[in-house]
Amino acid sequence: MEWTGEPVVGRGVVERAFTLDVDGRTVPGIVWTPEGATGTRPLVAIGHGATLHKRVDYVLSLARRFVRHHGYAAVALDAPDHGERGGLSDLLVFIEAMRRPGIVDETVAEWHAAVAAVQQLPEVGTGPLGYWGLSMGTIFGLPYVASEPRVEVAVLGLMGTVGAPEDRLVKDAARVACPVLYFQQWDDELFRRDDVLALFDAVGTRGKRLHVHPGGHSGLPREAYEASEAFVASVLGAPR
Amino acid sequence: MEWTGEPVVGRGVVERAFTLDVDGRTVPGIVWTPEGATGTRPLVAIGHGATLHKRVDYVLSLARRFVRHHGYAAVALDAPDHGERGGLSDLLVFIEAMRRPGIVDETVAEWHAAVAAVQQLPEVGTGPLGYWGLSMGTIFGLPYVASEPRVEVAVLGLMGTVGAPEDRLVKDAARVACPVLYFQQWDDELFRRDDVLALFDAVGTRGKRLHVHPGGHSGLPREAYEASEAFVASVLGAPR
Repeated sequence: MEWTGEPVVGRGVVERAFTLDVDGRTVPGIVWTPEGATGTRPLVAIGHGATLHKRVDYVLSLARRFVRHHGYAAVALDAPDHGERGGLSDLLVFIEAMRRPGIVDETVAEWHAAVAAVQQLPEVGTGPLGYWGLSMGTIFGLPYVASEPRVEVAVLGLMGTVGAPEDRLVKDAARVACPVLYFQQWDDELFRRDDVLALFDAVGTRGKRLHVHPGGHSGLPREAYEASEAFVASVLGAPR
Repeated sequence: MEWTGEPVVGRGVVERAFTLDVDGRTVPGIVWTPEGATGTRPLVAIGHGATLHKRVDYVLSLARRFVRHHGYAAVALDAPDHGERGGLSDLLVFIEAMRRPGIVDETVAEWHAAVAAVQQLPEVGTGPLGYWGLSMGTIFGLPYVASEPRVEVAVLGLMGTVGAPEDRLVKDAARVACPVLYFQQWDDELFRRDDVLALFDAVGTRGKRLHVHPGGHSGLPREAYEASEAFVASVLGAPR
């Protein structure tokens, strides 16, 4: 992990950009920690949605919530072709990009590598681990959560059984064993209601719940972010 | 409204049983208020489920939450044939009882009368009004909420478009204008998933949300009660 640029400190939150080499790919990320933090603390990995990037408003806002309200660390990555990795910002280009074989496994490997690197930092350490990612953040994040038994809590959703590449989401969902909060937008223009409900249904853990709100794909209301924060914190607890 | 028996005070909550004459029917109820309360405060009307009664565990627990944590008043009634009105405790007898024409309108009238009577108490007054009722508490409560524009917030659910008498729920749902929290049990043995989702869909207010949890009809988890309390309080606010 290499730091890029200087740390930025604001209202108690230290934000540091980094790059990480993962199997020859340069993956840019950001880690957020409390100012002056020492010792082990929970870490939340935050995946962004399609056509967006690692520092989009809601990712930044969630990261700061976890740091300021709970003393956690947070980490976000640019997904393949997104942000500093190509600036993908068009949904049709995204759909094409998702057709590349191996893209899910590569991105899952990037999450494993980033979490391992961030947990090497002495002010983060190997504490409880959570994941938050909706839509494309679920396309990549659900397989990541399924492959990482150390993830103790996950927020997923805005995704159906149809629409993800490689037709693996349902199979991976069955392997998810941690508590899950799943979101659905009732008037989602990208995913059919039944398909979203079917993916929630496929999530293997008994400790799951679905919150549905009216509105379109990008209209997740503030209360969903508040519920996310409370849910993740209820499982990960306080820093040691 | 006539008081029956003596008030019972415990841990800051005053519980008083009463009967109310509504069109010749004697309706027994309970009102809960904070000990030593004076002045106007929010009131939450709580409807119980089929085969149960006005003081079943979860009704009592919710009432005490609202009184202790928020300084509200709460009121519960025995539904027709239930509790002191016949002790109905068998689901098949219930289904038969629900066939009686006019039962929904009669029960709605009882809620109107009870809320009016309780709000005459000086320590309750005409403050903000909420309703909480699932399953049979929605069969009667949804038409009540639809008919009472003073209800500012409602918690409903565990009910489908099929199963309620008089085939009116969908029509009444469209008239609900206040914020609604709707609950579904994902493995409900009494109501089909699609029917429950269809009734949520029919709720007219845009300020609605659905929380789904795994488990059967009677398995609503603790977090649903916590969410109920927070949701109702977020709308009704603090006592004046």
